Amino acid sequence: MTEQTGAQALWAALSGEGVDTCFANPGTTELDLVRALEGQDSIRCVIGLQENVCTGAADGYGRMLGRPAATLLHLGPGFANGIANLHNARRARTPIVNLIGDHTSWHLPFDAPLSSDIESLARPVSGWVHRIASTADAPRAAAESVRQSLANGGQGATLIFPADYQADPLQGAAAAAGTPALDAASTAPVDIATCAQRLRSARRIVFLLGGGGELGGLGVRAQHAAARLCAALGATAYAETFPARAERGQGLPAFDRLPYFPEPARAVLDPADLVVLAGALPPVTYFGYAGHPSLMVEAARLLSLGEPGHPVAEALEQLADALQAPAFEAPVHPLPAEPAGALTPAAIGAVLTRALPEGAIVSVEGGTCGYPFYAASAAAAPHTTLTNTGGAIGQGLPVAVGAAIACPGRRVVGLLSDGSTQYTIQSLWTMAHEQLDVVVLIAANHQYAILRNELRRGGAALGARAEALTALDSPRIDWVGLAQSYGVPATRAATAEELSVQLREAFGRRGPALIEMAL
Amino acid sequence: MTEQTGAQALWAALSGEGVDTCFANPGTTELDLVRALEGQDSIRCVIGLQENVCTGAADGYGRMLGRPAATLLHLGPGFANGIANLHNARRARTPIVNLIGDHTSWHLPFDAPLSSDIESLARPVSGWVHRIASTADAPRAAAESVRQSLANGGQGATLIFPADYQADPLQGAAAAAGTPALDAASTAPVDIATCAQRLRSARRIVFLLGGGGELGGLGVRAQHAAARLCAALGATAYAETFPARAERGQGLPAFDRLPYFPEPARAVLDPADLVVLAGALPPVTYFGYAGHPSLMVEAARLLSLGEPGHPVAEALEQLADALQAPAFEAPVHPLPAEPAGALTPAAIGAVLTRALPEGAIVSVEGGTCGYPFYAASAAAAPHTTLTNTGGAIGQGLPVAVGAAIACPGRRVVGLLSDGSTQYTIQSLWTMAHEQLDVVVLIAANHQYAILRNELRRGGAALGARAEALTALDSPRIDWVGLAQSYGVPATRAATAEELSVQLREAFGRRGPALIEMAL
Repeated sequence: MTEQTGAQALWAALSGEGVDTCFANPGTTELDLVRALEGQDSIRCVIGLQENVCTGAADGYGRMLGRPAATLLHLGPGFANGIANLHNARRARTPIVNLIGDHTSWHLPFDAPLSSDIESLARPVSGWVHRIASTADAPRAAAESVRQSLANGGQGATLIFPADYQADPLQGAAAAAGTPALDAASTAPVDIATCAQRLRSARRIVFLLGGGGELGGLGVRAQHAAARLCAALGATAYAETFPARAERGQGLPAFDRLPYFPEPARAVLDPADLVVLAGALPPVTYFGYAGHPSLMVEAARLLSLGEPGHPVAEALEQLADALQAPAFEAPVHPLPAEPAGALTPAAIGAVLTRALPEGAIVSVEGGTCGYPFYAASAAAAPHTTLTNTGGAIGQGLPVAVGAAIACPGRRVVGLLSDGSTQYTIQSLWTMAHEQLDVVVLIAANHQYAILRNELRRGGAALGARAEALTALDSPRIDWVGLAQSYGVPATRAATAEELSVQLREAFGRRGPALIEMAL
Repeated sequence: MTEQTGAQALWAALSGEGVDTCFANPGTTELDLVRALEGQDSIRCVIGLQENVCTGAADGYGRMLGRPAATLLHLGPGFANGIANLHNARRARTPIVNLIGDHTSWHLPFDAPLSSDIESLARPVSGWVHRIASTADAPRAAAESVRQSLANGGQGATLIFPADYQADPLQGAAAAAGTPALDAASTAPVDIATCAQRLRSARRIVFLLGGGGELGGLGVRAQHAAARLCAALGATAYAETFPARAERGQGLPAFDRLPYFPEPARAVLDPADLVVLAGALPPVTYFGYAGHPSLMVEAARLLSLGEPGHPVAEALEQLADALQAPAFEAPVHPLPAEPAGALTPAAIGAVLTRALPEGAIVSVEGGTCGYPFYAASAAAAPHTTLTNTGGAIGQGLPVAVGAAIACPGRRVVGLLSDGSTQYTIQSLWTMAHEQLDVVVLIAANHQYAILRNELRRGGAALGARAEALTALDSPRIDWVGLAQSYGVPATRAATAEELSVQLREAFGRRGPALIEMAL
C-alpha cells in the first residue's frame, strides 16, 4: 500500500463510515483535500457557488437518508457563509460533517488575512467541534466526526483541518480502528404502562408529532399509531409547525400543523389537559409575543415519548396496543377541485396537490404558499415534506438540491417564496450542473409578506418606510430570466390553468425547471 | 416632547453621532426598529436581499467616508450571513455599527427556533460587542457603538438589541450625554529624528504603504511624501498587496503592489535591510508555503510609522523634510495603447485605464483582472481603488454598492471575476433599486482560476476531479441575462473594441450597467 496523505486518510475514513457525498466550495487551504479526491471515487462531490448552498444541501441530504453528507468549506469566512443553513440543520437534528480547511499550522500565529476564530463561529451550529492536531489524528477524527454527527438525534460535527496535516504523509497504520464508540442515544426508554395510564386518565389530549426519519413522529408508522390513539381516546393530533421531515398524502391521516401565531396555537393547546410529545419539543411561541407565555404548555400538562430526531414510532404503537386502539384505517381524502382563474395561494396548493407525483419530496419555504399547500396536500399522492426548521431564510432551494442528490429516483419540488429564495439563489446553478429533477415554484408577490403581516398585527397601519423596507417590486425580479441565466428552463404562470399545464410539463421532463407564479 | 421607544432613541442617538445610512435586511425581531424609522428622516435605509450585501456595502461606505454606516440584521442567522464581508471589513479597519435584533428578553431562555449564540458569532468580526440590557441602555449604547467603531483605526461594533427593549418607552431623559469618551488612538507618536537616522544609515530601503483614508499610506499626501523619500534615499515603495483604499492615477507615483505569491514578494523584500511600514502590517505570506517563512521580514529590519487605519501622511512628510528630500514632482504616465482584438486581462486593464472617468472608485475583486488593471491604472485619470482585504470572496459588488451610496457624485466601477461575484450576486438588485452609478465588469472565464493556479504551482498537473471542482462552465452562467433579470442593463463584450465602446456608453448614462467580458 502506498503512503497516504492526511487528506487521503481522512476521505478513506469518512468513506469507511458510510459518507458518500460532499457538498463543496473549497479554497486554497482545502486543495490537498481536493487533490486527495483523485483516488477516492466512492465520494461524490457536488459544487455550490456559495457555501449556504452546500450546507443547506447537506441538510436536505441528511434529512432524507438519516446519515451525514460532508461539506467542504474554506476557513472561517467560507464556513460563516454556510452558518445560516447549519442553524436550520441543527434545529432539524440533521447529521452533517463539516470539513473546514485552515492555514498550515505553523502559519496560524501570524494572523494572515484569512485567519479568524473558526471555533467561535462553529460552536453555535455544531454539537461537536474538533481541530485536527496532526496528520495521524486525521482518520481517527474523521471516523469520530461521523459518529458525533449521529449523536443527540443528529447534529453538526465540525472538523478543522490545517493544510499541512492534509498534505503530510501519514506515518504508520491508520488509527481509526481504535476509536471509542459513542455512548448510546441518551433517551431513556419510555414506560408504556405509565404513559398509557396517563392517557386513560386525561380528558382532552393533543398529540404533537415532530419530524425526523422513517421512525420519527411524522413517519408513516408513527402517524398510523397516532391515528389509532386519537380514535381510541377521542384525541386530536398535530404536526409541529415546522417539521424537519413529514410523510404526507393519501393513505395517511390529515393531521394539521400547529399554527404559527400564538392565538390559534393556544386555541389548540390551552383546552388540552395533556399534550403528548412524540419527536417534538415542548411548544414555544416562535417569537415573544406580549400577553402570551413563551412556553405554551407548562410541564405538568406535557408527556414526552421521545426527543426530536429519536425514533418514537414504536412507543406510539405500543401505546396504541396497550390502549386496545382500533386498527389503522387508511383514510381517503377527496382531491381538491381543479382551480381556475387567478393564482392564489389556495389555488397553488390545489394545483400542486393534484399534480404531485407519488414519492415526491417537497421542500417548502415561505409564508405565502407553505400553509395552503400543507392543508391541501393530505389529498396528494404520498410524498415527503421538508420545512424550514430554524427560521434562517434561504433554506428551501439548497434543501431541494440535497434531497435530489440523496434520492435520485424521486421527484423534488421546491415550493418557495420570492423573498426567501434570493438568499441562496446560486442553488439554481447546481441544479443545472447536476441536472437534478427539481421543479422550483416561486410565489412571486414581490414583497416580504411575512414582515408586512407581522407589522399589521393588531390592525396597525403600514408606515411609508416600513412599506419601502418590505417591498421587492422596484424593480421586479424576472424569475424566468434569472433561472434561464443559470441554465434552468423556466416559464411564468399567471393563472391556475397555466400553472397546471406547466407543472405537468415539468414533471414530464428530466432535469430542473422553474415556474414563476405571478401572485 | 413625546415619549420615545427604545428603538426611536437608538436611531436618534446614532443620528446624533453622524450615522446617516443603514444597510438593512430586517426580520420580525427588528420590526420596532423599522417602525421607529418613520420619524427618523436623517437615516437613509438601503435594502440588501442577502446580508452579506449589507455588510459589504457598509464596508465600502466606511472606507470612502471614514465613518460608520449601520447594518440592520436579523438575529444570529441573519448576522451570520453577513460575517464574511465583516471579516474583510475587519482587515480593512472599516468602522461599522452592526444592529442585530434579538428575541424579546424574556423569550430567550426558551430556545425558540431562531435563538442562537449571537455573541459567539459576532466576536470574531467585532472589536466590540454589546448586548443592550434595557430600554434606557439603548441611546447610550448607540453613541458608544459609533465611538467604538472608530477605535483601533476602525473596527466593527456590534449591538444586540432585544425586541422588547426596542418597543418599550424610554423612561426619563436619554442618557447619551453622560457616556465616557473613548481613549485616544493608542498609536504612539513617531520620533522623526530617530526614524530619519535609521533611514540615513540603511543601504537598501523598501517602503510598504498601507491603505486607509485620506491620510493613510496610500492617500495622496502619503504617496507624495513617499515618492520624495524614494528620490532622496534611492529607495523603492510598494503598496501592500490588498489595500483597503488606494489613490491612484495620473499625477501620482506608479508604486507597484507587493506581489501575492511568496517568491516574487521575497524578491522585493529580501534584499532590503530596512522595510518601512506606513499604514501597513509587517508583511506575512497570504497562506503558509513550504520553504517560505510566514513573516517575510523579521522585526530587526522593520520600522513602523503607524498601524493600518491610522494617519501616517504627516510622519512621512516630516521624514521627507528631515531628510531634505526634493519636492514632489508629479509624474506623467503614458496612456497604454488602445488595445485591439481578443479580450485578455491586459487588454481589459488598458481599456479601463483609458476610459476611467476622473474621480472614479474602482472596487476590485478577483485574480484574473485585478493585477493587470492595477499595473496599467497609474496612467488612468485620478481615482480610488478598493480591494479585497480579508480574502472572503463576494466583496466586490457590495463594496461597490456602499461606495456609490457614500459618494453619489462619483462613478463606481466593479472590476470582478465571475467566480467571486456569485457569492453576493443579489447586490445587482440593490444597484437597480437605488439606481446607483455603478458599472460592473465581469471577467467571465467560467472557472475558479485562482484555485487552478494554486493547484498548478510547482508544475503539477490538474487532476480530473480537481478540474471538475474548479470548473464553472457547465452550464456557463449568462451574465447578461442575470443582470437584466435584476433590472441592471447589460451587454457582452468579446473584443477590446467592443469593451471600449460599451464602457464609454455605460459611463455616459446614469444608473447601473453590467458588461460581461468574454475571456
